[in-house]
Amino acid sequence: MTARHIVHHIPVCPFSQRLEILLALRGRADAVEFRVVDITKPRDPALLAKTRGTTALPVLETPDGRIVKESLVILRYLDEVLDGPMLRRRDPAEHAVESMLIAREGPFTTAGYLFVMNRDRARRDDHAAKLLSLYRDIDAFLCEHAPRGPFLFDGFGLAEAVFTPVFKRFWFLDYYEGFDLPDGPDYRRVRAWQEACMAHEATGQVTREEIVKLYYDYALGAGNGALVAGRAVSSFAFVPRWQDRPWPPRDKYAGTASDAELGLAV
Amino acid sequence: MTARHIVHHIPVCPFSQRLEILLALRGRADAVEFRVVDITKPRDPALLAKTRGTTALPVLETPDGRIVKESLVILRYLDEVLDGPMLRRRDPAEHAVESMLIAREGPFTTAGYLFVMNRDRARRDDHAAKLLSLYRDIDAFLCEHAPRGPFLFDGFGLAEAVFTPVFKRFWFLDYYEGFDLPDGPDYRRVRAWQEACMAHEATGQVTREEIVKLYYDYALGAGNGALVAGRAVSSFAFVPRWQDRPWPPRDKYAGTASDAELGLAV
Repeated sequence: MTARHIVHHIPVCPFSQRLEILLALRGRADAVEFRVVDITKPRDPALLAKTRGTTALPVLETPDGRIVKESLVILRYLDEVLDGPMLRRRDPAEHAVESMLIAREGPFTTAGYLFVMNRDRARRDDHAAKLLSLYRDIDAFLCEHAPRGPFLFDGFGLAEAVFTPVFKRFWFLDYYEGFDLPDGPDYRRVRAWQEACMAHEATGQVTREEIVKLYYDYALGAGNGALVAGRAVSSFAFVPRWQDRPWPPRDKYAGTASDAELGLAV
Repeated sequence: MTARHIVHHIPVCPFSQRLEILLALRGRADAVEFRVVDITKPRDPALLAKTRGTTALPVLETPDGRIVKESLVILRYLDEVLDGPMLRRRDPAEHAVESMLIAREGPFTTAGYLFVMNRDRARRDDHAAKLLSLYRDIDAFLCEHAPRGPFLFDGFGLAEAVFTPVFKRFWFLDYYEGFDLPDGPDYRRVRAWQEACMAHEATGQVTREEIVKLYYDYALGAGNGALVAGRAVSSFAFVPRWQDRPWPPRDKYAGTASDAELGLAV
């Protein structure tokens, strides 16, 4: 493959980061041109025409102009189309194992996002319990299929590329909800997996500070660049840069800090 | 591949039928031994040990004793491991297109099952509206990627194997809810697709009469072999055979018919 693919994305989005991780692992960062979409502004009509009106990101454009949506579909597509050995396991039974683990990612991600976006303090424990039950399920899966670890197979693979961006987004749960995996045998294996995933050199596209600052509005219940009442600038704004803003307040249930307090006043 | 795989299944289950369709299309019905599980009885401890306590079906056992769960994972696994040309599109971009369509199946199936299991007559229209919105989304997808049709590509393929069993289960919506696709341009393409899928010779594993009779308890809100209050036998029972039972009453909101009226008294 010589022609370049284009991916339209939000740089901090976990569903885009897994594509970047794949490219890093495959040594093919050059194969895709990433074009940044500012979700705090109206969508470019030219891109809307290409996607036929849908706004979910990332979206991939092939060199001949075809559009591929859905993060996991794009991930598997790129893995197939890039030159060189694929990231997925070649053996069909091993690939089935990683696919079973990947099938757990949707409910896991949803549980974490519903938790961070929850606005009812009384429901906090229910959200934590739901997410912990999914962690235990992943723990049991890893104990069955990869008891020694740390990874599902002999190195960082497709399932790790899928989950690691989500683990890193869950920094927002640590910061805004004080959520952490409990000690104890029910979480030992998944904790080791999560730590190995997050420490891997191919996954450094985002930092904890970036996630915590950009996802502040999620912690207030406003996703996808929506504006929180009483504010004029989204925490997802590109300007001012997150590096130049202070850390947001941790207490998400107290209501929003002002644009000025968040360093968002231009 | 010479050794046989085993699939533990409920014969009427849509998530198993798609495996049977794949095998029929690939001309490899001999490659899998199907073992029937009676979900109206306690699960066999030997099978529970193999699945590590989970009860969802189908479950595949490889010739060397490995366990694969999740209908779509099993489907793709079998497609890879069987001798001969795969059902999936070989071209990665075409495969991405069928995968995007397959990604719509989960919400589509869920909407139909929630509809048939709904017990609140006042919520009937909301369920119908939700399902119709998903039909329109599939219609738009097909108009974009396969305007001429009837199939997504030049014949019955992987996406068709995934959806057809669900279309056939939705006979229960026709019978118990009087649900049908409206006429008009918003549904023309998906209607043609659905009709072509359901008419294909590889998809005759179940009949309308079988679906309507076996899923009667779903229409009363009781899934997976659960017993309806006031009844002693599940509509999913193997004995008496569905062929020997009368058609159930259509009005699901009136409460259950008796075991005797349903032909279920042994």
